[in-house]
Amino acid sequence: MAMVTETTGLATFERRMTRVRDDLRAAGAGAMLVGPSSDFSYLTGHDAHASERLTLLVVPAEGKPFAVVPRFEAILLGERASLLDVHAWQETDDPIAIVAGLLGTAGGGFAVSQQLWSTFLIGLQAALSGRAWQDATPLLRPLRMVKDESEVALLREAGRRTDVAWEAFIGEPISGQTEREALARLTGLTTDQGLRVNWGICASGPHSASPHHHTGDRVITEGDAVVFDWGGTLEGYNSDVTRTVHVGEPGAEFRRVYDIVRRANQAALDAVRPGATCASLDAAARDLIIAEGYGEAFLHRVGHGLGLDVHEEPYLVNGNDLPLEVGMVFSDEPGIYLDGRFGVRIEDAVVCGPTGGERLNEATRDLVILA
Amino acid sequence: MAMVTETTGLATFERRMTRVRDDLRAAGAGAMLVGPSSDFSYLTGHDAHASERLTLLVVPAEGKPFAVVPRFEAILLGERASLLDVHAWQETDDPIAIVAGLLGTAGGGFAVSQQLWSTFLIGLQAALSGRAWQDATPLLRPLRMVKDESEVALLREAGRRTDVAWEAFIGEPISGQTEREALARLTGLTTDQGLRVNWGICASGPHSASPHHHTGDRVITEGDAVVFDWGGTLEGYNSDVTRTVHVGEPGAEFRRVYDIVRRANQAALDAVRPGATCASLDAAARDLIIAEGYGEAFLHRVGHGLGLDVHEEPYLVNGNDLPLEVGMVFSDEPGIYLDGRFGVRIEDAVVCGPTGGERLNEATRDLVILA
Repeated sequence: MAMVTETTGLATFERRMTRVRDDLRAAGAGAMLVGPSSDFSYLTGHDAHASERLTLLVVPAEGKPFAVVPRFEAILLGERASLLDVHAWQETDDPIAIVAGLLGTAGGGFAVSQQLWSTFLIGLQAALSGRAWQDATPLLRPLRMVKDESEVALLREAGRRTDVAWEAFIGEPISGQTEREALARLTGLTTDQGLRVNWGICASGPHSASPHHHTGDRVITEGDAVVFDWGGTLEGYNSDVTRTVHVGEPGAEFRRVYDIVRRANQAALDAVRPGATCASLDAAARDLIIAEGYGEAFLHRVGHGLGLDVHEEPYLVNGNDLPLEVGMVFSDEPGIYLDGRFGVRIEDAVVCGPTGGERLNEATRDLVILA
Repeated sequence: MAMVTETTGLATFERRMTRVRDDLRAAGAGAMLVGPSSDFSYLTGHDAHASERLTLLVVPAEGKPFAVVPRFEAILLGERASLLDVHAWQETDDPIAIVAGLLGTAGGGFAVSQQLWSTFLIGLQAALSGRAWQDATPLLRPLRMVKDESEVALLREAGRRTDVAWEAFIGEPISGQTEREALARLTGLTTDQGLRVNWGICASGPHSASPHHHTGDRVITEGDAVVFDWGGTLEGYNSDVTRTVHVGEPGAEFRRVYDIVRRANQAALDAVRPGATCASLDAAARDLIIAEGYGEAFLHRVGHGLGLDVHEEPYLVNGNDLPLEVGMVFSDEPGIYLDGRFGVRIEDAVVCGPTGGERLNEATRDLVILA
């Protein structure tokens, strides 16, 4: 995450905290409890470290936010004194008791951020028995899923740099490399662009039919479809791109499937406009794939929100009637997976603008054939 | 994580599952609920992916374990059919309702693994109201903290490879590089050894006085103390090493502090024997540092368990009366931090043997002066 060195930075977090407090009051909750996660970063600009040592941000409906943190990490929050108070605990303290003591007088129940570890929630529930506990996600969703201009700018730049890495990557052969080696080269090209890379998938040959394949030591060979799904972060904001290449000349069915997936990707993009439901984007891609006879092979939703998390609200899935708003950013990633044979996925990040969708990455979607 | 391809691999996981079921019955709990985490890997050998899509391993006190997983990830668990049943959910299903339905008839409360996201626990608590919820950590601790021979062998090999990376790293100058650049070179040398690297710290100059400094763009300069704290995984098992170097000739106080920290590291090692308490190791290092006048500057416990997690039980901290057992593996990492000036930390991994402690890494602890 970026360090907070400018007044404008802290003002952003103060505005977000104020919104959370308003929402807590409207929901009748006493406080929001936020563990190390993108929610913590979103509200404070601090990339807190998730571990067995409790780090917890508390945003009360009334009063100043505070953080309970290990003593030797307190220095990392020091420059945020105007935003929140810091309560540092020593190695021999019981941090749950400290939090319970600080929360004990506040009225109402608690909204708990998505990724707080259960060990802490169970400890807090025991120390503060009889209180109501709810998931904070519905409260944070309206804030986080609509990006402001500076967030869109970071997502756009992360996408652009990922494109540059891809264009360099497809300039060289991959046949004879293991999945791990090919992914490492792509990852290296991406970090060369100044992005931080924390994950990636290379799925070759029959593995490409498994959407979340664990990259391994299979050697990429002539005749393989190879799916690369990767991204990096710029000041915490993610890119997330998938491209599928073929090693050597593909057969007719691969070409046909590739073309269908590409058209489905375009169909979802074409459906983007403010007010369209999340479900309608999924349907735009899915209906096309069903009409072409591959409906059963499109195994997942068409996309997910993208920001400080690689997966976040809004989810573009059947049944989600949430209407799109200007500033929402999400992936557009239809795929067709033929078990034991091959898979194709093409994924871009898209921002919803006033009149339609705009892609944040433009790495070629033409079929790339590598040696 | 390693793929499970040998019968011996599955037998290990079956033995661990049996132990969990015995412990659940002894504790009067109905089932253990395990989210994606090292606990999941420890019990199944599968490196499950933590995300907003529920993946949950359920180990009932009676009956066969099962996993509830997203449909398109079910294939990744396929080879474990003898170990557990797989219930795959579709993108439009409610996975919490599926888990609640499967658990509804089991008696007793639930033990929840440490790192399960709160969003899932809160959902399960609402769907299974009136049941008791406890932290599974006390049940899993006795299993996980005592390593078997194959686990110690992996930890030893991970340590050895990290040593090789370090010896190569200190063969070149670091002055003029940013913290990020220096760490990237060390990380690269570590991945060259076949380890996967997910984290690391480079803290230079005054930053070295912050134990969990966030590596940044400060340029390393003549006169700096520089702390490197890093590691990698081999089949999921971690190395964790810290070394402190000096750029150019150090002054007298740095030399003195370095010598104290090195002797404190040795004192904790010398205190290792079966039956010694975790607290006694912390005291061995701390008493020495206090006697030398730097007690207030040793900001953290002397160590933590090491295995599938970088931090796990047992914690070597004042107040922890847990006695050491043969096969426990933990870090030995005293440090002295002089705010605004410099810090020194020296960290090794140690296994408790029948007669004493044995280090799992041997990268030089002599003071290294780099250009």
